[in-house]
Amino acid sequence: MAEKLVGACIIGQSGGPTSVINASAYGAISAALAAEEITQVLGADHGITGVLSDKLYDMGQEDPQELAYLKNTPASELGSCRYKLAEPETDDTDYKRILEVFQKHNVRYFFYNGGNDSMDTCDKISRFMAKSGWECRVMGIPKTIDNDLWGTDHCPGFASAAKYIATSAMEVSKDGRVYPTGQVTIMEIMGRHAGWLAASAALATHFGAGPDLVYLPEVDFDQEAFLNDVERIYKQKRTCLVAVSEGLHYADGTFVSEAKTSATDGFGHAQLGGLASRLAEMVKERTGAKVRPIELSLLQRCGAHLASATDLEEAEMAGRKAVEAAVAGETGKMVAFERSYDKIGQYVCNYVLLPLTSVANAEKKVPMEWITPEHNFVTDDFIDYLLPLIQGEPERPTENSMPRYAKLKKVLA
Amino acid sequence: MAEKLVGACIIGQSGGPTSVINASAYGAISAALAAEEITQVLGADHGITGVLSDKLYDMGQEDPQELAYLKNTPASELGSCRYKLAEPETDDTDYKRILEVFQKHNVRYFFYNGGNDSMDTCDKISRFMAKSGWECRVMGIPKTIDNDLWGTDHCPGFASAAKYIATSAMEVSKDGRVYPTGQVTIMEIMGRHAGWLAASAALATHFGAGPDLVYLPEVDFDQEAFLNDVERIYKQKRTCLVAVSEGLHYADGTFVSEAKTSATDGFGHAQLGGLASRLAEMVKERTGAKVRPIELSLLQRCGAHLASATDLEEAEMAGRKAVEAAVAGETGKMVAFERSYDKIGQYVCNYVLLPLTSVANAEKKVPMEWITPEHNFVTDDFIDYLLPLIQGEPERPTENSMPRYAKLKKVLA
Repeated sequence: MAEKLVGACIIGQSGGPTSVINASAYGAISAALAAEEITQVLGADHGITGVLSDKLYDMGQEDPQELAYLKNTPASELGSCRYKLAEPETDDTDYKRILEVFQKHNVRYFFYNGGNDSMDTCDKISRFMAKSGWECRVMGIPKTIDNDLWGTDHCPGFASAAKYIATSAMEVSKDGRVYPTGQVTIMEIMGRHAGWLAASAALATHFGAGPDLVYLPEVDFDQEAFLNDVERIYKQKRTCLVAVSEGLHYADGTFVSEAKTSATDGFGHAQLGGLASRLAEMVKERTGAKVRPIELSLLQRCGAHLASATDLEEAEMAGRKAVEAAVAGETGKMVAFERSYDKIGQYVCNYVLLPLTSVANAEKKVPMEWITPEHNFVTDDFIDYLLPLIQGEPERPTENSMPRYAKLKKVLA
Repeated sequence: MAEKLVGACIIGQSGGPTSVINASAYGAISAALAAEEITQVLGADHGITGVLSDKLYDMGQEDPQELAYLKNTPASELGSCRYKLAEPETDDTDYKRILEVFQKHNVRYFFYNGGNDSMDTCDKISRFMAKSGWECRVMGIPKTIDNDLWGTDHCPGFASAAKYIATSAMEVSKDGRVYPTGQVTIMEIMGRHAGWLAASAALATHFGAGPDLVYLPEVDFDQEAFLNDVERIYKQKRTCLVAVSEGLHYADGTFVSEAKTSATDGFGHAQLGGLASRLAEMVKERTGAKVRPIELSLLQRCGAHLASATDLEEAEMAGRKAVEAAVAGETGKMVAFERSYDKIGQYVCNYVLLPLTSVANAEKKVPMEWITPEHNFVTDDFIDYLLPLIQGEPERPTENSMPRYAKLKKVLA
């Protein structure tokens, strides 16, 4: 049993928002408020940037009912950021400032909720604190619709986005078939390097109405094969729905959408977009068909009204487990999910801890054996992987049939 | 009491699909199957084009449970078309063929479900049949997400699309605020000439998180005023959500998006799209902000998972009432909705009949007094109009947490 560590905690949200990241925040905040070792629960405004600017909210002053509404509120209610910390060996300015703020508020627990880059931030802070001698337990809470975090069976946020995508693909598939004149529809789905989300559209096909073709960034994009595929299906059925990952790239590594934009985000990643329109032009030229490009854009990552109850519960538990583990003495870890099946074959999610160092900056992609040999669809193994994760419709608070989101007071500490 | 007219009926779907057009089909089909005067219930494949090609399905051979699933199946399950009939005085080829098919199957009832153009088709057939001496009762069933049909308080399909748009706007509004770096988001919403759908995004603002600005095609687009509005709000809040109708046009009538495409649909309407991207470019240039264009595209008209229970019920009733009225002797009419409020102020929908001639080709727009003097938002009168229509979440059949749609056998008659 670790020594009892008494002090305040900070909870921060980072990276792209999801439908259930606030459920993780709720899990962490409510567990922290209940923990006797934790003297004050602080929410960082816009993640680590709020720590740097000492903009911290006292979560203990929030109405418990409003905090509970966080579970069904999409996007990052505390605010997010894409701030990249320098290597502490190169430039420790930010770390010294973080230490200063931690000391000011007697912060002994730091919980950071995010994806790859955020686990990197988390890991760096953890190592710096250990070196500086300020006792502070640092825990990562996973989050990413991209599902590309290493070491965990899946990530909170992925399944809800996948459910949104699969349901939308099912609806659009129905819509794309109505005219006798025919139509090709190209649906662009998020995912820079990993195709988990684009692959999820195939679930619609499994249930009778979905994409005919699915292209993932795990394999090089073969434009000629793509055009041949679309042409063949369109000639056969007069309708064709194609799901594509925004990260499709040619064999030389350049993104198919690349020439469209040269903007980059704070981490130096190219900002993608416009892929569907570009492919639509190609298909139109080849087939003469009417082509509809659809970009799911932000809708897919904030579609809380279609959240998976399983995902929502796991997201909340991830936050809760992080706090419980830290209070019990753990540090420098991320909460991860391990999948098992019980005696009657029901999916079970087990919560385990992984060293942050092993998680940070590693990417998990769709296994090649789950992609068909033609590189234009996914296998049933992928469906078996995904299906348990999207189960269940959560109770969704509404007011006059519109969503009822949390209204936080955000009182500065 | 009209003379009893015994024979088959045809039910056809036309124009753009909606989330609830199949609920109208279900209402009409189930009422027709129950009517003793109706000897056979035929579903036209792809609307009037299925009549012309004598491709008619015997709906009596469908499993009743599958027919019931139609209520929650989006898009036009029988297939739709955008086929424009010639004026019968100019060219009566199609009409003669329709008469031939009607006579072959002893069709004495014709129900056509669609928007403006479809009511025009319906009206022309009604007049031709009357002139030809073939006794056939013709009834229009309204449908359009655009809500622009004249003479009816609202149209089936509108409220479900509006609910989808308002809910999505609420979610995107949350998402657009997460980064401290700020963002302008431009959401492009369907509506060529009438701004009912774009205006619906304002419902999200009414419930605490929605667009800051709403632009409708009812007024000429003032680009300079638009850029000033966006810049002012972005400077103030570092975030700005704008809802725009695809039909925005300059004072000279040209669509703002026009230069992007020169394609037209079967009725000679310009095919719009790309407006959000175009406006995003302008805003980026003016403000330097990160700008996200989002086009709701087909998603908004097939988002059955967010259908309004009120809309769904009214859509089914519209189909049912059309059949009941025709059997009772009516012809050349469209079912329309009249709004009233009961003693305790609850919204009530009354079903009335309007002459097709008065409905066809007339367009109902958002009243100017419901648009703010600055032309950049809607008034509370619009919210009062919309709110009752989006109420209620229908029971949504699912299978493994994915939608369960109707699977029809479609047996040719």
